[in-house]
Amino acid sequence: MLTRPTLLLDKAKCQANIEQMATKAKKANVLFRPHFKTHQSAEVGSWFRDCEVECITVSSVKMAVYFAVNGWKDITIAFPTNILEWATINDLAANINLNIVVESVDTIKFLEKHLNNPVGTYIKTDTGYGRTGINAEDYQAMQALLNELKECKNLIFIGFLCHAGHTYNAQSKEEIIQITNSSRQQLLALKTFLSNDFPLIQISYGDTPSCSISNNFEGFDEVRPGNCVFYDEMQVQIGSCSQKDIAVALASPVVAKHTQRNEIVIHGGGVHLSKEAITKDGKPFFGTVVRLNGYQWDTNTIIGQVSKLSQEHGIIKVNDEILAQINIGDMLAVLPIHSCLTANLMKEYRTTEGKTITMMR
Amino acid sequence: MLTRPTLLLDKAKCQANIEQMATKAKKANVLFRPHFKTHQSAEVGSWFRDCEVECITVSSVKMAVYFAVNGWKDITIAFPTNILEWATINDLAANINLNIVVESVDTIKFLEKHLNNPVGTYIKTDTGYGRTGINAEDYQAMQALLNELKECKNLIFIGFLCHAGHTYNAQSKEEIIQITNSSRQQLLALKTFLSNDFPLIQISYGDTPSCSISNNFEGFDEVRPGNCVFYDEMQVQIGSCSQKDIAVALASPVVAKHTQRNEIVIHGGGVHLSKEAITKDGKPFFGTVVRLNGYQWDTNTIIGQVSKLSQEHGIIKVNDEILAQINIGDMLAVLPIHSCLTANLMKEYRTTEGKTITMMR
Repeated sequence: MLTRPTLLLDKAKCQANIEQMATKAKKANVLFRPHFKTHQSAEVGSWFRDCEVECITVSSVKMAVYFAVNGWKDITIAFPTNILEWATINDLAANINLNIVVESVDTIKFLEKHLNNPVGTYIKTDTGYGRTGINAEDYQAMQALLNELKECKNLIFIGFLCHAGHTYNAQSKEEIIQITNSSRQQLLALKTFLSNDFPLIQISYGDTPSCSISNNFEGFDEVRPGNCVFYDEMQVQIGSCSQKDIAVALASPVVAKHTQRNEIVIHGGGVHLSKEAITKDGKPFFGTVVRLNGYQWDTNTIIGQVSKLSQEHGIIKVNDEILAQINIGDMLAVLPIHSCLTANLMKEYRTTEGKTITMMR
Repeated sequence: MLTRPTLLLDKAKCQANIEQMATKAKKANVLFRPHFKTHQSAEVGSWFRDCEVECITVSSVKMAVYFAVNGWKDITIAFPTNILEWATINDLAANINLNIVVESVDTIKFLEKHLNNPVGTYIKTDTGYGRTGINAEDYQAMQALLNELKECKNLIFIGFLCHAGHTYNAQSKEEIIQITNSSRQQLLALKTFLSNDFPLIQISYGDTPSCSISNNFEGFDEVRPGNCVFYDEMQVQIGSCSQKDIAVALASPVVAKHTQRNEIVIHGGGVHLSKEAITKDGKPFFGTVVRLNGYQWDTNTIIGQVSKLSQEHGIIKVNDEILAQINIGDMLAVLPIHSCLTANLMKEYRTTEGKTITMMR
């Protein structure tokens, strides 16, 4: 029986999400290298093996170690390499096929000097997101990195890795497809420009909105969506999925009712859901609340939205009818805004069959 | 040596913060019952014992169990009681002096029926925050709860517990003092109104802004500030402390530099700092970045602010001079916006002497 905030995981929905993306990539003849930062779990990872996934993406050296220990032999750390962790990177590279991401001459020089095992190396490439990476159209900067990489014995240049995270700010599916197309165009132009010197350049492309909404993976050698394993309210808003595809929900007990202001208080706050919000009509919300029957939530019975959030409290505005139906001690389910952050906080899952699944600690 | 995101803890600053609040409470002849949700650590908790603290506050049943196991014998769970956890509450109450918080007749009835060990019971009282609790001026609702509590054998009524969290939205110290005074007035009026039937009513008062800024604890029997153990940028902005009082900082390695847009990228994101932000001049920031020498940070050398945050990346805007001084592989320190959430995410501390301190898992 559920008695306290618990992250529920619907294995069937999760497996369907995995299968859908794996099938899409296979049809497009593109490698599916899923990002495992969303679930951070060896057991959830094993469900990808059922879809013949052998290569994965992670976001930190620590996460690479965790999945390597759990039997994964081909891992890309899709984060600008932290040179201070060179020793762990070197150890990993001795045991698995490890790929890293670089974006500065300093990083390349340092790693070439310190590593003595080969690592596959991508240049982090920015097609308009503006977070990090070399601008895809800055051929001069690209050439400077490639000149350096050419001299390396242990950094083996593979190609360009791009996360078009600006899809998260897109206002329509058309805009997402446009971002994907523009990114592809930039990456292919870059590849063409360098094709004489580097005929085998690979293009690794990421982000769940692009990979969910676009049906055209042409020009990409691999795709790295991560969030699609669970999806969440952010992805529903973007148009990547529907609410019934969301594979995780936070079970939260009702602890107080405020009839005068039509509010319910749940034990489910920032330490469970994270403070990530979606702003709608000028107001933030922190999750969508639905009915829970045993371990199964029902997206057809929306109770309301978490409108305020503190460390442990979640506040839900409801109408009179729903207020009358909800009792103290009821368990509700909250569909999270950002499932990656919620999973990272909760540190374990309970499947809808009642089984506990652990995560990286 | 620090190589990856690590939550540093300056023990001397932390102990000074504890001592300051303990001394203030002692002078005012008020019990100091600190909230342990901020640090969630048995070892940090033990530093309070040096200031003769024996009674503590926590925010969940799980946290009460953790601290009870670690030797604390007098614990208040300052969160509306989750009746589904009655069995654990009952077990705890058999072994320690446990206090709980109620705010509905349903909760009281359920607990009286199920518990067979005595628990001290506060009525959660709202003096204007509007999150949860019974309005301090709603004497009719208070009377209904008290009529119910009077009949209880195992729920022993102690008094009123208030968290005046609206101090966090105050625009000045004067406004915070005004909120404290108004809360006190409401609580004392309530106490007077009930003094014939309940001559021994206690008033438990919380929140770090009030307890840090106000010097008048008159009328309160105990105070429950928690954040003051570490403080953070939110408390600096409120006026509860200065930046040099902040006792925790996230050590974060520099992984990329963008000279064209004057930005530095650190490994330090939402999974380390939390997504809590302060909005200044219409723009959010997620932490203040200062220099780090070994394990010691220097609040006199402010580098910039974390202006964007994703799961693992933090983006810092800097001026030309600082940009030229910072190298890839440097470690910087980020003073968090909300230390409770940062500590909760990081799950352990490294003291500035290099010692690792664990937390509740």
